[in-house]
Amino acid sequence: MNKPVLIEGSVDDVRGFTSLGVHAGLKRAKPDMALIVSDVEATAAAVYTKNAIKAAPLLVTKKNLAHSGGKARVVVVNAGCANACTGAKGMQDAEAMAGMTAAAIGVDPSQVIVASTGVIGQPLPMEKIGKGIGALTLAFRSGAKPAKAEDAILTTDTTTKHVLVESSWKGKKFRIGGIAKGSGMIHPNMGTMLGFLATDAAVAPELLRSLLLEATEASFNMVSVDGDTSTNDMATVMANGASGVEVTAGASETVFAEALGLACVTLAKKIARDGEGANALIEVTVKGASTEKDARKAALAVAGSNLVKAAVFGKDPNWGRIIAAVGYSGAKVKPEKVALYMENGVGRVKIANNGAGIPADQSLLKKILMSDEVKIEVDLGSGRSSARAWGCDLSYDYVKINAKYTT
Amino acid sequence: MNKPVLIEGSVDDVRGFTSLGVHAGLKRAKPDMALIVSDVEATAAAVYTKNAIKAAPLLVTKKNLAHSGGKARVVVVNAGCANACTGAKGMQDAEAMAGMTAAAIGVDPSQVIVASTGVIGQPLPMEKIGKGIGALTLAFRSGAKPAKAEDAILTTDTTTKHVLVESSWKGKKFRIGGIAKGSGMIHPNMGTMLGFLATDAAVAPELLRSLLLEATEASFNMVSVDGDTSTNDMATVMANGASGVEVTAGASETVFAEALGLACVTLAKKIARDGEGANALIEVTVKGASTEKDARKAALAVAGSNLVKAAVFGKDPNWGRIIAAVGYSGAKVKPEKVALYMENGVGRVKIANNGAGIPADQSLLKKILMSDEVKIEVDLGSGRSSARAWGCDLSYDYVKINAKYTT
Repeated sequence: MNKPVLIEGSVDDVRGFTSLGVHAGLKRAKPDMALIVSDVEATAAAVYTKNAIKAAPLLVTKKNLAHSGGKARVVVVNAGCANACTGAKGMQDAEAMAGMTAAAIGVDPSQVIVASTGVIGQPLPMEKIGKGIGALTLAFRSGAKPAKAEDAILTTDTTTKHVLVESSWKGKKFRIGGIAKGSGMIHPNMGTMLGFLATDAAVAPELLRSLLLEATEASFNMVSVDGDTSTNDMATVMANGASGVEVTAGASETVFAEALGLACVTLAKKIARDGEGANALIEVTVKGASTEKDARKAALAVAGSNLVKAAVFGKDPNWGRIIAAVGYSGAKVKPEKVALYMENGVGRVKIANNGAGIPADQSLLKKILMSDEVKIEVDLGSGRSSARAWGCDLSYDYVKINAKYTT
Repeated sequence: MNKPVLIEGSVDDVRGFTSLGVHAGLKRAKPDMALIVSDVEATAAAVYTKNAIKAAPLLVTKKNLAHSGGKARVVVVNAGCANACTGAKGMQDAEAMAGMTAAAIGVDPSQVIVASTGVIGQPLPMEKIGKGIGALTLAFRSGAKPAKAEDAILTTDTTTKHVLVESSWKGKKFRIGGIAKGSGMIHPNMGTMLGFLATDAAVAPELLRSLLLEATEASFNMVSVDGDTSTNDMATVMANGASGVEVTAGASETVFAEALGLACVTLAKKIARDGEGANALIEVTVKGASTEKDARKAALAVAGSNLVKAAVFGKDPNWGRIIAAVGYSGAKVKPEKVALYMENGVGRVKIANNGAGIPADQSLLKKILMSDEVKIEVDLGSGRSSARAWGCDLSYDYVKINAKYTT
């Protein structure tokens, strides 16, 4: 009853939304600007990086949503340049990017969500941005789609990330679609992560904001690729009500929250799996914690440990590193109560009990480590709270990608 | 006047101390057990990892020092096995290792500092430990030195780390010698770092402890190799008074603290420079912070950022990553006030001002990045506090070393 299901599709498959991408020349040969438009005014909410240094587009989006009272019509995004650490000029450029888009689509500038991703510290090439906005709106008006939006927001990502979830309320179906980018610099608190969600349910701005926050805490903020938290990243959601489903406090809220959670977790896992240089997704479940905060800390510490990640890359059952990460996570831990398991889709092995190693089936363990999805479960044995985090292995390619990013 | 100087030498060059190593078979072909003995009872202090999961030898050392009232005669160390996450058996083994050493040297077991480093989660091979203690004490009694102690405490380290500092008080010279190991899993709060210091000054236990804590905060705890904090690591100091210099609260304390600080910082920098796979030492100075805590947080975040480290490895002047790390460090930052410099022994370049990039001499910047010691200076422009942290670049070899550590 009302369980959300994943179906194939993206933002475009949500009633009343159109998305597309173009190549504006910010990147050499790949699509690098994207547009998402709602046919009608939508309610909108956003969550922002917790990095104290926030890129200009985030500050402009925040201001816009405050000014419009949580309403938006358009998302405009560029890749190739983050417009972060760019001072007053950066703010002007982000304002101009929103303003040009608003003018071209014919909406108020405060109804534009603007986002950038790419190299930090370089000014936005405004001539290219201007041409890109022209190309985006021209294509939008003519119904053309030179490129997909989900392609045009990528940086070092190797795959696109999209999601479509369907659920229903009182016999009416509603959908939540989304696209995201991730790859490097991914860490709790919205490390270079961009996620743009759209739903045809109707949700009031304040409720939409609190539901997005809640979904983000359990998804995007539980992904760690390298421990670095970016200046740029945010997740946004627009709700245009085209399905006729109205979400309000109570049972419909629960149904919608579950669907939104599924959409965000699905995107988050895709981001973790496509971490720079990654070969395997690592899913860490911590249970038996005294508090949810402790569970979150411990799960993220394990998913974010370079040593755990390198061990998974090397298929090395060096489980002591997992326990060590739990230990330094800041979570309350009674060492003598910790148990540890590893599993994949097929097998499950108990590796440690009461804080100490136990004889484990090494050949099964090796098989699990060979999977492209390694699940680690830590039971703290101290309470009833749990949390889940996602990461990826640390490979030579991570270093290669990041050693030569700007040059 | 009374400035400490670095001279060539190690623990053995401090009056009344002898150190040596042997090969006990814990590692295939390298020395793997070490002994440091003071001729007379010394005062002793130790600082321990902040990891909630502390290895058995740390717990035993803590108990011993509490029992002896801060006195010790002997340090015994093994490499190859960390004796961490080994439950009650691990505690018994660490007790036995201390007890056997005490019996062989002829001191009370509470006067033994015991340390282990190596793989987590495997039981200490007690037969080899026993034989090693026999070989160590036999060599000690006969004045033989099968191996150096500084060699016998290493894991994946590529170089030994030793230091000798000389200073004076009221015309009398005193020395502080030390050996250390580091390499992987190095991070604030004593990540797999072992440091053993010895001085011929006389210092009361409580004062010695507070001086060690203070020196550690500004040295070992400001080193980051990979963000992982180990279960095992500690720094200890023994003071036997053989120089006739007595350190008490006041001016002599200041002189001694400066010498101890120099010894610890020298070892810390050697640890950072020899981080797993490292080609360059990164020294990060943060100044202009509102509080020292903020300065420390920001310096460590930069020194510990995978993205900054990979950029240094790749000689890529991707300075936005430095600012981003400052931003997520948790330090209070006013983005518009941040300035950034890079330098080596030869040149210095200002890269950002008021939080935004400025035209910089790219060829000089490239030269600086080619150095084996890259200095990064961040001025937060918000106050008068400063701190310094050390790290190293992130190379392919880091991944290689850590992908195959136990197998």
